[in-house]
Amino acid sequence: QYLTKSVIFGTMEVKTSSNSVRFDKQRCSFIVLIMFFSLPAVNAVWPMPQLISSSTDRYPLSPRQFIFQYASGSSAKSGCSVIDSAFKRYFPLIFVDYLKKTEKHMYRTFSMQPMLNVYASIHLSFPFSVVDKLSVSSGQASLRAKTVWGALRGLESFSQLVYQDDFGQYFVNKTEIDDFPRFKFRGLLLDTSRHYLPLPAILKTLDAMSYNKFNVFHWHIVDDPSFPYQSSTFPGLSSKGAFHPSTHVYSQTDVSRVISHARLRGIRVLPEFDSPGHTQSWGKGQPGLLTSCYKGSVPSGTFGPVNPAMSSSYQFISRLFKEVASVFPDPYIHLGGDEVDFTCWKSNPEVRGFMQKMGFGTDYTKLESYYMENIINLTKTLNKTSIVWQDVFDNHEKVKETVLHIWKGSPAQIQQELSDITLAGYRVILSAPWYINHIAYGQDWTTYYNVQPLNFTGSEQQKSLVIGGEVCMWGEYVDATNLSPRLWPRASAAAERLWSDEKTTSSVTDAFPRLTDFRCRLLRRGIQAEPLFVGHCRHEYEGI
Amino acid sequence: QYLTKSVIFGTMEVKTSSNSVRFDKQRCSFIVLIMFFSLPAVNAVWPMPQLISSSTDRYPLSPRQFIFQYASGSSAKSGCSVIDSAFKRYFPLIFVDYLKKTEKHMYRTFSMQPMLNVYASIHLSFPFSVVDKLSVSSGQASLRAKTVWGALRGLESFSQLVYQDDFGQYFVNKTEIDDFPRFKFRGLLLDTSRHYLPLPAILKTLDAMSYNKFNVFHWHIVDDPSFPYQSSTFPGLSSKGAFHPSTHVYSQTDVSRVISHARLRGIRVLPEFDSPGHTQSWGKGQPGLLTSCYKGSVPSGTFGPVNPAMSSSYQFISRLFKEVASVFPDPYIHLGGDEVDFTCWKSNPEVRGFMQKMGFGTDYTKLESYYMENIINLTKTLNKTSIVWQDVFDNHEKVKETVLHIWKGSPAQIQQELSDITLAGYRVILSAPWYINHIAYGQDWTTYYNVQPLNFTGSEQQKSLVIGGEVCMWGEYVDATNLSPRLWPRASAAAERLWSDEKTTSSVTDAFPRLTDFRCRLLRRGIQAEPLFVGHCRHEYEGI
Repeated sequence: QYLTKSVIFGTMEVKTSSNSVRFDKQRCSFIVLIMFFSLPAVNAVWPMPQLISSSTDRYPLSPRQFIFQYASGSSAKSGCSVIDSAFKRYFPLIFVDYLKKTEKHMYRTFSMQPMLNVYASIHLSFPFSVVDKLSVSSGQASLRAKTVWGALRGLESFSQLVYQDDFGQYFVNKTEIDDFPRFKFRGLLLDTSRHYLPLPAILKTLDAMSYNKFNVFHWHIVDDPSFPYQSSTFPGLSSKGAFHPSTHVYSQTDVSRVISHARLRGIRVLPEFDSPGHTQSWGKGQPGLLTSCYKGSVPSGTFGPVNPAMSSSYQFISRLFKEVASVFPDPYIHLGGDEVDFTCWKSNPEVRGFMQKMGFGTDYTKLESYYMENIINLTKTLNKTSIVWQDVFDNHEKVKETVLHIWKGSPAQIQQELSDITLAGYRVILSAPWYINHIAYGQDWTTYYNVQPLNFTGSEQQKSLVIGGEVCMWGEYVDATNLSPRLWPRASAAAERLWSDEKTTSSVTDAFPRLTDFRCRLLRRGIQAEPLFVGHCRHEYEGI
Repeated sequence: QYLTKSVIFGTMEVKTSSNSVRFDKQRCSFIVLIMFFSLPAVNAVWPMPQLISSSTDRYPLSPRQFIFQYASGSSAKSGCSVIDSAFKRYFPLIFVDYLKKTEKHMYRTFSMQPMLNVYASIHLSFPFSVVDKLSVSSGQASLRAKTVWGALRGLESFSQLVYQDDFGQYFVNKTEIDDFPRFKFRGLLLDTSRHYLPLPAILKTLDAMSYNKFNVFHWHIVDDPSFPYQSSTFPGLSSKGAFHPSTHVYSQTDVSRVISHARLRGIRVLPEFDSPGHTQSWGKGQPGLLTSCYKGSVPSGTFGPVNPAMSSSYQFISRLFKEVASVFPDPYIHLGGDEVDFTCWKSNPEVRGFMQKMGFGTDYTKLESYYMENIINLTKTLNKTSIVWQDVFDNHEKVKETVLHIWKGSPAQIQQELSDITLAGYRVILSAPWYINHIAYGQDWTTYYNVQPLNFTGSEQQKSLVIGGEVCMWGEYVDATNLSPRLWPRASAAAERLWSDEKTTSSVTDAFPRLTDFRCRLLRRGIQAEPLFVGHCRHEYEGI
């Protein structure tokens, strides 16, 4: 390999008698060896493509001459906002030093041989193709995708194929990639209720998600502690329920910005308005919505879940969801439905009366089902599909056409739940093994990597109902100060599990150097990703 | 309390019919109540002063008129670099909004009543005073300290007494503080070998240390993975032993900058050059230093600890430490001495021959003792005192005048070790309960807070030998990306344990709101301190 390098750089040997430069050159050749052997180009893309073949043939890239262009047969053409803006975004991601004035000089000094141009062309004229293709060969790269979203994934892969040698010269190896995601739903949850996340933290997370080929941002926007969503229909919800009515809210403009930032990166925004539990903050701006808890025969002054006995509750939810449905274009809304505590309902005479009237006896799961069915139907009238946490299934509510979201249980319980839910014919999203807010000393990413989402008893038909998985970053102990280093690269382990073939990515040992390398790439792109273990990146994070 | 506020702001009521402003005002008064009741001024200083009394009488501070000045009787006068630069540093820490152009306007709008000036005066003419005093009363604050370092601590306390009301107006309450640290040695260890920490990360940590009244930066500068210290005597150590010879090193200028930054903040820099183990990276630039390990009768190609059988080893250490002693002005050097694995020594025929010659039999702890005694004596000739890890005591080496550093064991073992070491008459530093690199889900700061350093069997004389404690942030999983949120405010819990009276700070419940408040103050000062639990700060971290 070093011979190849010598040939390519035949005219560039720097001879000097200085000791320090000699050491430097020795280290350089060592680093090159690492690149060629420990981190071969064939493994350079995270998450691992379905098929990738590459050779050691490499082509230099000139940031001065490199252009992206739509191929002549492409159905997407200049003016396609998603691709146009991706071209603009990926240039500085690929040529990461180029825009830094101080390093420009380098190219003048070292770039002595003529460079080859590489054109990334995007064909969008193959609607029946199942597989997106990225091909890098002499002088040209070509990307064929059946959707703009596939084209975005291909651009990400291409950007990861490019590397710099020790002289700062950019290269890409001859490569063929056929790629598609294993799961359609590759989500990440942020919780903006337990702590408020300023907009830059959310946008930065979306950037990092796109580098990891995540495609769903599950925005757990409100919960007990605060209601930062600024509703135009009910402004009191945030003005009274947010941590602060002006500084700790998401205005309609903020929400639009998140949705548009996400869309341009091929990411859907799935809003969650969890009810009837987890709604303490809702009550502040919407008196009468929550159940008044009783101590004996008098109200205790505290409140429980949404009051399911009042028609006004459904009228409120209906109006709120009508707004939510129009603000968030995604065809799904997450309705929550988890951890409903019946204590307060049981204490309230009005609720007890309603139970009697409805013939529910003392089975409060029936009341919960009644509530959930109502708001699921209400969501359906808004032409949206519901996603709910597993509790709704566990309590035997009728939830047809709804997607179930698994969040709890031991590994064995999770497997059972996957079997049961899919046997009942429901689609399912898996989150339980990816509660990434839980931290532990050491390399816990391996746990997230080793998850086998389809390892449960069930038919092929059942397995096909597992539409994907989602990493959850709950906010009890997380805000913008520690979000990025806790997410990355730990969430990247789940990203590969959700995108890549399980057989070709079954080894933690093989993944380690690749993920170490990818983490350095994240750093280089400004993502505050923490280290996996002892070592270093060529460019360390200094943005302290 | 609200009445008081109404009187002070009697002329400032903002009347309006707008709903949103009405909500805003309600929240404001609520926040004021929190400040007066949940976070009373008496508890506003972290770590808790030895004695503090304060009243609800408060004085407005004008950033335009506020000045620091040396009191007329002060022995330190203008020209004292430590205090002069502290005056400059603390102004923007106290008036945190003042230098931001956008918020200047506020003072014009709301500052209607004349303000009182507060002068912080520093008396340095009381060499026999045991207690430093800070007194804030009508129109003037006065700080009496017997050393410049005490004056720095007093300035920190004063800066924490100042708060802003909801209109951005600065206030300080009438307060009397008598203060002194419980322990003389309040350290924090950073490990720059397992990951390189860029200089800004170290300087920022020193800033945060001073806010927490830590006074020793234990710089674990080199270890097995890398040797970033750029030695002028042995440049090969870093050029071959660092992760990168230019980008991942601490030049002499860098080291000076760290020492000077620390000194101005009242922080000593204690360098550690750990040997004979933990020296893999040393071997790269100093061939022949490490023991060559044998497989049978031939060298295996791997290396063990420093070779204690060669006089050249001691000559090398002597020359290296001569440099270290002159570069680092602190009277102490940490010599390490932990975790020496005897396997390689046992395999090496030369070392075995030396054992025989010295009459050590097969007891390799004697060889280890021989090595440590040699370098402790060598350190003594440089007029420095040695600190070593507890292993050196555990292996019964003669270590008179040396300070022992406890780093391991169960709580019971740690108590026993404290008893044993102090009974033998050695001074001791406690780190074992404060290995803050170990993380766990939830509020683990309480564990660090609940440590009782003097809770062991021993006489008063023995207890007085516990000179302090040290928080250790080992670098296996930590670099500049996650250093700050992992350190702060978790290390702050240890900071209070080391500074404050144990009786007045025995309750985690009482500490929680104070630490929550202090964490927000750290954020406001640009320290990326993570949250303790659900909630918010008025000014969130946005520097993502």
